[in-house]
Amino acid sequence: MSSALRVIPLGGLSEIGMNLMVYEYGDAAVIVDCGMMFPDAATLGVDVIVPDMTYLFENAEKLKAVFLTHGHEDHIGALPFLIERAPLPVYGMPLTLGFVKDKLDEFEIEADLRPMQPRDVVEAGPFAVEAIRVTHSIVDALGFAITTPLGTVIHTGDFKIDHTPIDAKPTDLARFAHHGELGVLLLVSDSTNALVPGHGPSERTVGGALDRLFSAAKGRIIVTSFASHIHRVQQVIDLARKFRRKVLLVGRSLVDNIETAERLGYLRFPREVRAGSADLLPRETVIMTTGTQGEPSSALARMAVGEHKQIEIEKGDVVIISARTIPGNERAVAHLIDNLYRRGAEVVSHEQPDVHVSGHACEEELKLMINVTRPKFFIPMHGTLRHLIHHARLAESVGVPHGVVITNGQVAEIDGESIRTLEDRVPNGKVFIDAEAEEVPEVVVRDRQHLAEDGFVIVVVAIDSMGRLVREPEIITRGLVHVDESQDVLEEVRGELAGMFAESPPDELRDSDLLQERMRALLKRYFRKNMGRRPLILPVIWEM
Amino acid sequence: MSSALRVIPLGGLSEIGMNLMVYEYGDAAVIVDCGMMFPDAATLGVDVIVPDMTYLFENAEKLKAVFLTHGHEDHIGALPFLIERAPLPVYGMPLTLGFVKDKLDEFEIEADLRPMQPRDVVEAGPFAVEAIRVTHSIVDALGFAITTPLGTVIHTGDFKIDHTPIDAKPTDLARFAHHGELGVLLLVSDSTNALVPGHGPSERTVGGALDRLFSAAKGRIIVTSFASHIHRVQQVIDLARKFRRKVLLVGRSLVDNIETAERLGYLRFPREVRAGSADLLPRETVIMTTGTQGEPSSALARMAVGEHKQIEIEKGDVVIISARTIPGNERAVAHLIDNLYRRGAEVVSHEQPDVHVSGHACEEELKLMINVTRPKFFIPMHGTLRHLIHHARLAESVGVPHGVVITNGQVAEIDGESIRTLEDRVPNGKVFIDAEAEEVPEVVVRDRQHLAEDGFVIVVVAIDSMGRLVREPEIITRGLVHVDESQDVLEEVRGELAGMFAESPPDELRDSDLLQERMRALLKRYFRKNMGRRPLILPVIWEM
Repeated sequence: MSSALRVIPLGGLSEIGMNLMVYEYGDAAVIVDCGMMFPDAATLGVDVIVPDMTYLFENAEKLKAVFLTHGHEDHIGALPFLIERAPLPVYGMPLTLGFVKDKLDEFEIEADLRPMQPRDVVEAGPFAVEAIRVTHSIVDALGFAITTPLGTVIHTGDFKIDHTPIDAKPTDLARFAHHGELGVLLLVSDSTNALVPGHGPSERTVGGALDRLFSAAKGRIIVTSFASHIHRVQQVIDLARKFRRKVLLVGRSLVDNIETAERLGYLRFPREVRAGSADLLPRETVIMTTGTQGEPSSALARMAVGEHKQIEIEKGDVVIISARTIPGNERAVAHLIDNLYRRGAEVVSHEQPDVHVSGHACEEELKLMINVTRPKFFIPMHGTLRHLIHHARLAESVGVPHGVVITNGQVAEIDGESIRTLEDRVPNGKVFIDAEAEEVPEVVVRDRQHLAEDGFVIVVVAIDSMGRLVREPEIITRGLVHVDESQDVLEEVRGELAGMFAESPPDELRDSDLLQERMRALLKRYFRKNMGRRPLILPVIWEM
Repeated sequence: MSSALRVIPLGGLSEIGMNLMVYEYGDAAVIVDCGMMFPDAATLGVDVIVPDMTYLFENAEKLKAVFLTHGHEDHIGALPFLIERAPLPVYGMPLTLGFVKDKLDEFEIEADLRPMQPRDVVEAGPFAVEAIRVTHSIVDALGFAITTPLGTVIHTGDFKIDHTPIDAKPTDLARFAHHGELGVLLLVSDSTNALVPGHGPSERTVGGALDRLFSAAKGRIIVTSFASHIHRVQQVIDLARKFRRKVLLVGRSLVDNIETAERLGYLRFPREVRAGSADLLPRETVIMTTGTQGEPSSALARMAVGEHKQIEIEKGDVVIISARTIPGNERAVAHLIDNLYRRGAEVVSHEQPDVHVSGHACEEELKLMINVTRPKFFIPMHGTLRHLIHHARLAESVGVPHGVVITNGQVAEIDGESIRTLEDRVPNGKVFIDAEAEEVPEVVVRDRQHLAEDGFVIVVVAIDSMGRLVREPEIITRGLVHVDESQDVLEEVRGELAGMFAESPPDELRDSDLLQERMRALLKRYFRKNMGRRPLILPVIWEM
């Protein structure tokens, strides 16, 4: 049994999203976070993407527990897919577990959820895991101090250094410093904003910007933000009260999250600020809704095209998009904004100052974290390779030269005195999940991409026992040519196929594999030569 | 015959790209620019998008000439599709026409290209079109003063106010002001940066940033920029000379554009700065290449994944991406950058100060243009609706209240005293063109999107004259399930189909339309209920 500490990222290191880190010592391991990511436009018909967890399933007997830093989808979204195959105790703050519970209920999965408070310590095999409060764009966010037989690992989780958070509960720098004093073996820290100089603004600055917008608005105010951003929601509720407006919540994920947050005491939503329906005067109304990323099925996107049942966008409405645009969604968000303008609304987005602030630490905050923990070794997490490399350089610039950049599936091994990266990766990658929570095999996604590029051609021929055509070949095609207007093309293909059959010697006509291959080659050549296209080609032979 | 001036945008107003503006008076019209746009990830198998030019083809007898502001693809890219159906004289500066010529040669189309110099005036029907020099991210950019019987229209083209351009030929503000003094009826101006406060930096600032990067680089320098950005290329060549490096050009569009620019005298590329091959010491080499947007087929993207024949990225290389990321390409560019880091290169992108500057006027420059031309009416162009609306507000803020926001296909009519928007739009929209320069019908693009989401299922049944199945139904599917692992699913579908045929009364079995509809309904229900998917379903019936 190895007496080294092994750090194994299965997600989040080199690709943003689906964060999953494994800390392993001897025959024991703990998991920190288990997130998903959303697909891009090229991953077709896929609903969510989760990390390949083969390594966990193959080492299930080692796993002691899952620790969750916070309740964002990229940190908890893959949990049902882990728990259903490897039931484990799941530790996290009450709001995090509240969101997890909602998710597990959807999947009808039971789990052993164990609430944790900051500075609580949980023993898990050879590990002692202490929760340390951090500020982030969701309440109840944690970092962990994981004490191992070789020393202490600080796993920051997603964090920023906000000295004036809305709940007055700042990042527990004293505790991080305490561990720094005792000696930290390894710091694993958030790289999201490793390329952003300076210090990020406090969440409270958003309140100021929203206050100015509320004060200027003459009509209805529509605010969209991430559904889990409870402090942002609280600030909107507080401002609504101040400006004597009522808040109407629209969008299922928002309603669910707010209900959970309120039930657990994280949100004050006084009765007199609640709107019972949309039938208020515009100047009395604040609508909070979902759809910051321009998702076509979101409430805001449907309002923007006049297809929302309850809300119609009107001239004079001010729409505040209080969230950043996730890379890849820029066109969708631009379309959303244009559609809103088309209906006469004014749109204020994150491009205007302080309408949104990041939940992640910028360069100076990252340096601060490195300086208070003073780790022996450093592994940057949560970012593209570029971010990880820059974060490692940042660490070097403040006197931590032993930054090791690893990416998903790579294993960093620490024996106390040195850190090294193992040659072999553990299985890693993306698993595609469709809307029914079923896995979509990669070959299916690849076929879809092929279909999407060039369409398909299927040819069915019926032959007799001598290999002679008993009727005209049937050609079925979509996504390649306009079928009704291209009968001449299809006629020509049929002619070429008939010619091929007529000219083949009798013995070859009885070899259906050979015939299929010939048909495929003929069609491939035809469409490439005549149309410059490479459709998916499927020849079918029926012996009648 | 109407004696009003009609302004008809067929592209570029509400969607960025494919700029095409028509100015019409009585039975005469001139066209300014004829551009294309690139497809996004959801427009599958489409190479370029051009504006629907039905209106032009239906009014071909009115058209007098095309005037080109500059040589960017979004201003000249659709010209072959216009000229092949409506041959017209094409006016523009020499470099613009040089790029147009290269393009027309590719399409094997002849055109009547007529060079124009700043302050030249061309008579075209009732119009007199004067060229006015502007600065932009390409040399030889123009705005136009179009004198009509009702007054003068200023069409700015894409512009910025750069007082220190590389060729020392700034925007001819005096001439714009001259027309302002005489009286401008209508200003039509570039809205790209209408949301960016202040004044944009000069192209020359990029030289300073590149100088610092060249000075610090110890290894090879690889610079990528837009292939047509001749001044950017010139600055790189000049710096290479200063730092005793040689420049190697990689990428066809870049080599072609530079050849054209050099032949026309727009670029000085001294022999001693040219690299004959890639076999130089790293510190002696500058590679200029294409691929600023992370396009997978570009030279830089191929280098980044180790698939370029000539160039291998090495540790110590510095890659400078001297271009902005076009919205929609963020993920591709992030992947490109990560791949470069993976091979040990350092990447410097437009996020770092002055590595790229915009070629479009920011708020203060736009105000300056409005102030020197002092137009009676104002139409913002070149931007999303949001940009157009903000630009119109900007005009209002400097005393031009009559801003009219129109979008593609809308007609603004000016009778000299008033401006109004006509109720009916002229035909407008996007035409999809594939890699073979053939039009892709919209139904084909829609089929591809459907295929991409959910794949297809084709069922072929063979029946006798009584409508009885003569063999098992054949099911062909891709992009839906893993075919090899889903034989049980397909078996079940075959069983349900066989059951349907067995249970149908004999008279219905002879109605093949009815049978097809039933098969479709059965399959649709099956896949929705059992898999939550909606594949493209095509039933085929063979009567044997």
